[in-house]
Amino acid sequence: MTESRHPRVVIVGGGFGGLEAARTLTKAPVEITLIDQRNYHLFQPLLYQVATAALSPSEIAWPLRHVLTRQANVRVVMTRAQTVDLETRRVVTADGDFPYDYLIIATGAAHSYFGKPQWEDAAPGLKSLEDATELRRRVLSAFERAETAPPSERPALLTFVIVGGGATGVEMAGAVAELARDALSRDFRQINPGQARVLLVEAGPRVLPVLAEDLSAYAAKALNDIGVEVLTGTMVTSLDDQGVDLGVTRVPSRTVIWAAGVAASPLAANLAGEHDRAGRAKVAPDLSLPGHPEVFVVGDAAAIAVDGKPVPGIAPAAKQAGKHAARQIAARLAGAAGAEPFRYAHAGDLATIGRHAAVVQIGKTRLTGFIGWAFWGVAHVYFLIGLRNRIAVAFDWLWSWLTRQRNIRLIVQHRGQDN
Amino acid sequence: MTESRHPRVVIVGGGFGGLEAARTLTKAPVEITLIDQRNYHLFQPLLYQVATAALSPSEIAWPLRHVLTRQANVRVVMTRAQTVDLETRRVVTADGDFPYDYLIIATGAAHSYFGKPQWEDAAPGLKSLEDATELRRRVLSAFERAETAPPSERPALLTFVIVGGGATGVEMAGAVAELARDALSRDFRQINPGQARVLLVEAGPRVLPVLAEDLSAYAAKALNDIGVEVLTGTMVTSLDDQGVDLGVTRVPSRTVIWAAGVAASPLAANLAGEHDRAGRAKVAPDLSLPGHPEVFVVGDAAAIAVDGKPVPGIAPAAKQAGKHAARQIAARLAGAAGAEPFRYAHAGDLATIGRHAAVVQIGKTRLTGFIGWAFWGVAHVYFLIGLRNRIAVAFDWLWSWLTRQRNIRLIVQHRGQDN
Repeated sequence: MTESRHPRVVIVGGGFGGLEAARTLTKAPVEITLIDQRNYHLFQPLLYQVATAALSPSEIAWPLRHVLTRQANVRVVMTRAQTVDLETRRVVTADGDFPYDYLIIATGAAHSYFGKPQWEDAAPGLKSLEDATELRRRVLSAFERAETAPPSERPALLTFVIVGGGATGVEMAGAVAELARDALSRDFRQINPGQARVLLVEAGPRVLPVLAEDLSAYAAKALNDIGVEVLTGTMVTSLDDQGVDLGVTRVPSRTVIWAAGVAASPLAANLAGEHDRAGRAKVAPDLSLPGHPEVFVVGDAAAIAVDGKPVPGIAPAAKQAGKHAARQIAARLAGAAGAEPFRYAHAGDLATIGRHAAVVQIGKTRLTGFIGWAFWGVAHVYFLIGLRNRIAVAFDWLWSWLTRQRNIRLIVQHRGQDN
Repeated sequence: MTESRHPRVVIVGGGFGGLEAARTLTKAPVEITLIDQRNYHLFQPLLYQVATAALSPSEIAWPLRHVLTRQANVRVVMTRAQTVDLETRRVVTADGDFPYDYLIIATGAAHSYFGKPQWEDAAPGLKSLEDATELRRRVLSAFERAETAPPSERPALLTFVIVGGGATGVEMAGAVAELARDALSRDFRQINPGQARVLLVEAGPRVLPVLAEDLSAYAAKALNDIGVEVLTGTMVTSLDDQGVDLGVTRVPSRTVIWAAGVAASPLAANLAGEHDRAGRAKVAPDLSLPGHPEVFVVGDAAAIAVDGKPVPGIAPAAKQAGKHAARQIAARLAGAAGAEPFRYAHAGDLATIGRHAAVVQIGKTRLTGFIGWAFWGVAHVYFLIGLRNRIAVAFDWLWSWLTRQRNIRLIVQHRGQDN
């Protein structure tokens, strides 16, 4: 509306990296446009709790517009960014072009099916709220269908296969096992949900490979203790909506969940320049796109290496990168060179296994069991945005923990979807 | 699994009528099968709060299976009942036939478009959780689209038309107006959400026609005070996704919400026997289907009149009818005639208008303003199922009331739906 006097910064993506970048520029003399195809920032680390009926979607999502309402130099635009024109310096969207002087691409990643995109329908991943409610629908529906199905069909309905032994896979497997064993255990008449099989399939030699070996072993044992069968060194060779092939073994299963592989968002994958195998844009040490010092790529959209070591695709890394890119822009506007190399400070790794155990590795400090679990819970509540969601999540966790119930057991259909 | 020794009672529908019927038979020597196409009981009176981002879906829905988990003589089956074969006494479903000795049909109603079913896409109603999240998506998306649209398109995007001046229409109109005026007011840069037009269109001479005239007038004034234009005596003559025709006047609007008319569920409408114009099955004074003393129809699926006066389609009436039908069955099993006429005790009527006003009419007692609003709130929290949801809803209401915020501002897409 007003005449443009300040340099225009366009940020594409309101996840951890993009939101942190916008906030870092609060006092900078810039006009920021934050573009996202969703109207909310999503706390992805807790998506698996939405998928397993422990939290409701609104507890881990905040309207971007509202998060940034007091930051006068930002406008939020809900639209889909289609391409970037690096020459004319414009982001092309469904709602017109957005010219920029500086651009931060923070569009994240989806799952990679390793060249088998046809697997996605039978084995959806867990990257969006829609994914999470769809997985919740599939998991809960499997029990419902097993209750009415002939006995011969029950084993496949009550077998849940989670592919990928990283944090998402481990947390999802533990949560599905506990859902079956605790929350659903007394609610059925024909089936015993506690007899559900939950398989966690990992191609590598151990789960949670980023952790120390003894913590991986602890996690595998903790998963076993709550009924998860952990299959390491096992490749999925094929899958469809009736089951999974693990080499020569066929596992009949009607619910397969994909938690493996990363593929950069199309916007990043289609950028000019070099990419890694996952399609992430290779960036200069200052996180700018080589040859385009005015363009930065952060978070899961970028292949970032510091001192030759890849920076992991986790929320703290995305936030640090978003902050770094924003600071480079601010420095240049203040007259400095603004091409400082990104330094990554690894805070630690953690994963929870059901409601009694977790593994935490922070430098040399290692926590397991209930202490690890409590640390995990406090850390996650702390990083949620807004007091209301902190209270709501803490209340839901306390309630679940006391009652062993899951509160959000809704099978929600698409509108118009039959049955 | 065990050999059937007890008479089989099939209840179709887990709404207010069906759930109350099942609970009333807790100690009866029967085998109950409760069939519902959803896995949850829905507290429909608060659906409009889900549609306007005040409550999350899980706060007004409970898994039927869990609600009834301790009632050993009930099994819950999630499937869609297709038809009733009155001769062979079977309910035909997608998952096979369910034979019955007694049947209670409690399948509720949908909206009626008065012979214009093509209006539904442009003007969805508010009967299911999917409806509510779809309306939430449309309402919130309209503001998002207005923010990026050319100024000429903004008025239609910021005009919301609610058709039908009953309790649902009044509550929805008030909630949309407050959403725009309070929660969204400071979050946009190009538009002022507070300038949104909210129109409530009612064909009859006044809103809330079941209430006394002075309460209707009070409600209309309270709606005006929060910015709702109330158009009584006004018929919708045509509508499409660009606007609404009100006789000679065309109102450009991209968001139309249907809160008028009732049409019985197909299962009830297709029953043999007489029906009223809405397709509701006409029942004998004991709520049984004429000629079929073993079949009862309750709630919005039935056209129930007591002493010549129609029983209203509200939750307390459905619950009373469900209880009555269950008691007739229990009486007959105990050797009594079990054909007592249904007596309806009208508790009262109430509707809320925004966060400061409500109208309550209970016999000769009338409450308005903040006292009415507080009574409305306490009554609704009281009737929710389960301590967890009572606490969660009370917390969300208190939080919204203190902050004027809406907590559930999520635009959730269908999976695979583009943008």
